[in-house]
Parts: sequence; structure tokens; C-alpha cells
Amino acid sequence: MKVAVFQMDAGEVGPQDRQASIEAAVAEAAEEGCRIIVLPELAISGYGAGGEIVDAAGDVSGEQVNWLKKLAREAGCALVAGLALQTAGKTCNSALFVPPDGGVVRYDKIHLYGNYEKTLFTSGRSPSPILSFEGMTFGLLVCFDVEFPERVRDLALRGAEAILVPTALPKSEGGAFIARSVLPVRAFENQVFIAYANHVGEDARFAYQGQSCIAAPDGKLLARGTPDTARLLVADLDPTAYDACRAQNPYLEEVKRCSGFLS
Amino acid sequence: MKVAVFQMDAGEVGPQDRQASIEAAVAEAAEEGCRIIVLPELAISGYGAGGEIVDAAGDVSGEQVNWLKKLAREAGCALVAGLALQTAGKTCNSALFVPPDGGVVRYDKIHLYGNYEKTLFTSGRSPSPILSFEGMTFGLLVCFDVEFPERVRDLALRGAEAILVPTALPKSEGGAFIARSVLPVRAFENQVFIAYANHVGEDARFAYQGQSCIAAPDGKLLARGTPDTARLLVADLDPTAYDACRAQNPYLEEVKRCSGFLS
Repeated sequence: MKVAVFQMDAGEVGPQDRQASIEAAVAEAAEEGCRIIVLPELAISGYGAGGEIVDAAGDVSGEQVNWLKKLAREAGCALVAGLALQTAGKTCNSALFVPPDGGVVRYDKIHLYGNYEKTLFTSGRSPSPILSFEGMTFGLLVCFDVEFPERVRDLALRGAEAILVPTALPKSEGGAFIARSVLPVRAFENQVFIAYANHVGEDARFAYQGQSCIAAPDGKLLARGTPDTARLLVADLDPTAYDACRAQNPYLEEVKRCSGFLS
Repeated sequence: MKVAVFQMDAGEVGPQDRQASIEAAVAEAAEEGCRIIVLPELAISGYGAGGEIVDAAGDVSGEQVNWLKKLAREAGCALVAGLALQTAGKTCNSALFVPPDGGVVRYDKIHLYGNYEKTLFTSGRSPSPILSFEGMTFGLLVCFDVEFPERVRDLALRGAEAILVPTALPKSEGGAFIARSVLPVRAFENQVFIAYANHVGEDARFAYQGQSCIAAPDGKLLARGTPDTARLLVADLDPTAYDACRAQNPYLEEVKRCSGFLS
């Protein structure tokens, strides 16, 4: 299955410019035959928009979600968007899987990063469901979540073949290590694909690492964004191509064998 | 605290040659002021010696352990050796911490790798205790164990500041990825030091990856062996030098916050 990651320019301000940019990327990805397009964390508002993110947040029947549904339906493929979602008066930093034919799947970020996010959002308390789409299985995470091996392991043990991750990784030495080393290792140790969609450039508050990627179950990168340019990354995900790799390092089988007698 | 890793030549055959080589490395490390010297997996017999490993294995009061105790006492520093140890008629692939003044700590490898190891050894069923030595805290793993994030996380959450790992990582594409990427990520995601002592070269059965390392809590390598030369690696471990790094990415605190409501 062809999957796209949209590494998005953080310098585009205002939801309307950002929506136009997303629409163009989705059209390009659909034209290339992609079945899923992954957008960055808080893609519609921009990650650095502060209180405006919360003010504009609706629930799953709100304006932003309706726009995403229309976009997925018209493009004929699924979207994974990072966006703020309201529930019972609280705002979560969420990832929403929006297939072309209705029936969205929501995940609320568990591991909020730093005071900026903790001031704006309430952390999620439930892992992503495993969702099926056109013959493959997927799980959702957001940004900081994927740095915790527990989160990816949990999804892999429940059967996810690929993890889709909107992110807003900041430009820093640690950010470079996370993009270059942590993401490939998460894919390798769980023998799953990971599609990691980051911002690039700067907004009013933050600078971003770029280096979005699509990592394979053997730890190799099928596609990699640069640290400085907005672009669409595309890769073809074929889980059966990695059967030999899974047999060589049977991490998931071994972990299942050991559960029950180890902490 | 200065710590050494001995990347050892697999081509040296026979326990006597290997013991002489270990004695020389321990003398050199002690001379450089190292307080702990980590040796590879099954260092005394050689990893590829097959049934001879089991035939020569004693228990913790046996000949090999007495030799290690004498060596540690005479050098005035601690050794961590990979060796086979008997218990109740079964043989484990173990790591033994041997301080200069008695009181060894044993850990039996939990995750045996492949049919070769599974035929020779019984897998351990208890994680390493956390041991204190000259003001720092340590945990033990063996080879394949460290590729499982669960094992390193368990030791870090129980307070280990450094993980000492005898290994026998084979020369392969996967081996190169493990040495170059997985080890630094394990250190980074748990904000611990990892000292990883591998073989280099070939014995009658296997070829080894070399690339032993001492990784720091920020994912940087303080020392790195080449893929082709036996040598001693030395680094100075200072846990307090990484307080800022722990504050920036508070992985362990965050995992403790989430335990109890997530799988």
C-alpha cells in the first residue's frame, strides 16, 4: 500500500493558508496513488498557535473534522491529521484517522510534551485502537508518544503493521537524534512500519526539525525529509517483504513468550 | 567513574590463551584507573566453542569464578564477565559481576538467541538485581537482552545508572544496525550509560560485529570499537553531567506517571 507523509511548512500562518496547502498535498498524493496521507501534529492550526488552537477546536462533528471528511471523500483516500479535539469541555491533542467513506478513528495524545502542551491540553488515557484499512492494520500515536518504547510495543503486540504519527519535533540536538536514530529503532525493534509526519521551518513560537520519515521493519528508511524543505514523502508498504527479517530477530514472539513471569 | 570495555579477539582459541588475553587487558585497564572492566559474552570459553562451553561450566564456586575473583582482587577493580554457569544440572549463559573484595552478583541471560544458544543453555527467569559499587548503581544484561526495550527500562526504573552488557553480536546487516543505532537509543530513551563489550573477528563457528561501545544518557558514544580490531575502550561515567538532558526529556518520570492506567 502506498502511503504519503506531508512534511509541512510551519511558516504558513492562518488556518486558511494551511488548509489550502493540505488540499494541494492531498491532491498530489492521491494522484500518485497513495491510499493514506499523514499530516503533522496540529496540522490545521499550526503547532505554535497557542491559545488559538484551543479556541478553534471543535468535537468530532465540528467544522475541522467535516472539512477533513470532505477532503478524504473527494480525494478517495484516507487522511491522518493531527488536530485539537474537544470532549466534555476539555481539549485533547489528537490524531484522527479519516477514511474516504466515513467512520473516523480518534486517538488522544497520552504523553504531552513540556509546559506549552500541558497548559493547552488534557492528556489522553487510552491507547489507539488497531484499525484496518484496505488489508493492512494501523495504530496511531502523536509525537512524544513514539519516543516511549512502551507505546509502540503495545500497538505492535495488538497487531498493528504500521504506526501513523503526526509530530511536531523541535529543531535541537535531541530532535536530530530522535529523527535519525529513535524512529528507525522503534520500527526495527517492533518490526513495523512507521510513518512520521513533521513540520519544517519556523512559526512564531518554535523551529522544527523536519526529517519526517517512513521507516521499515528492518530499520531502513523508505523515505526521509530534509531538515529544511516542505515536501511530500511517499513509500510503498509491503509487510510480507519483511518476513525473513522477522524470523531473524523474533522480538514480538519472544516478548509474548516472556510475558507473565517478568515485570 | 572510569569504566573499560574489552573488545576481544574471537580468533584466540582455548581457554588458556583467552585467560592470558583477559589478564593483560585487565592489567591495562587497572593501570588507566578503570574501576570496572566489562568482558564479552562467554569470554573465557569463546562464544563459538559449542558443547565445550557446557562441559567446562562450573557453578559460582567453580574454577572459572575463582580465577575471576583472584583477577579482580589482584587488579583491585571489578570485572563483569560473560560465562556459562551451572545451577541444579542446568547451564545458563550468565553475566557475573565480580568486585575486588568478594560478593559476586549473577544474572542469567533471559532472551537466548537462536537454536545454537537454545540447544546449549537454559534461559534465566529473573531480571538482574541493581548493584551498587563505589557510589554508582548498575544492572546486568547479556547480548540479545539489550535489544528488548523492556529489559533496559526495567533496570532503569529500578534505579540503574549504567547497564553492563557482555555480548556476542554477529557480523551482519542487522548486527551493524544494532551496534550503531539500537545501543545509543537504549541509552537515550532510559537516560542511562550502557557499556557493551563484543567479540571481534571470527572463531570456528561465527564472525562478530566488533563495534563495542560505551553510550551516554544523551545517546552519544563516549567510546566505540571498530568492526575489526581487538582493543580496550575506556570512558569516564558521570551521571550528574546529564541532569539537563534528563530534564529536557523526562522519559522515566513520565512512564512512572502513566503506569497503572496503561497496558
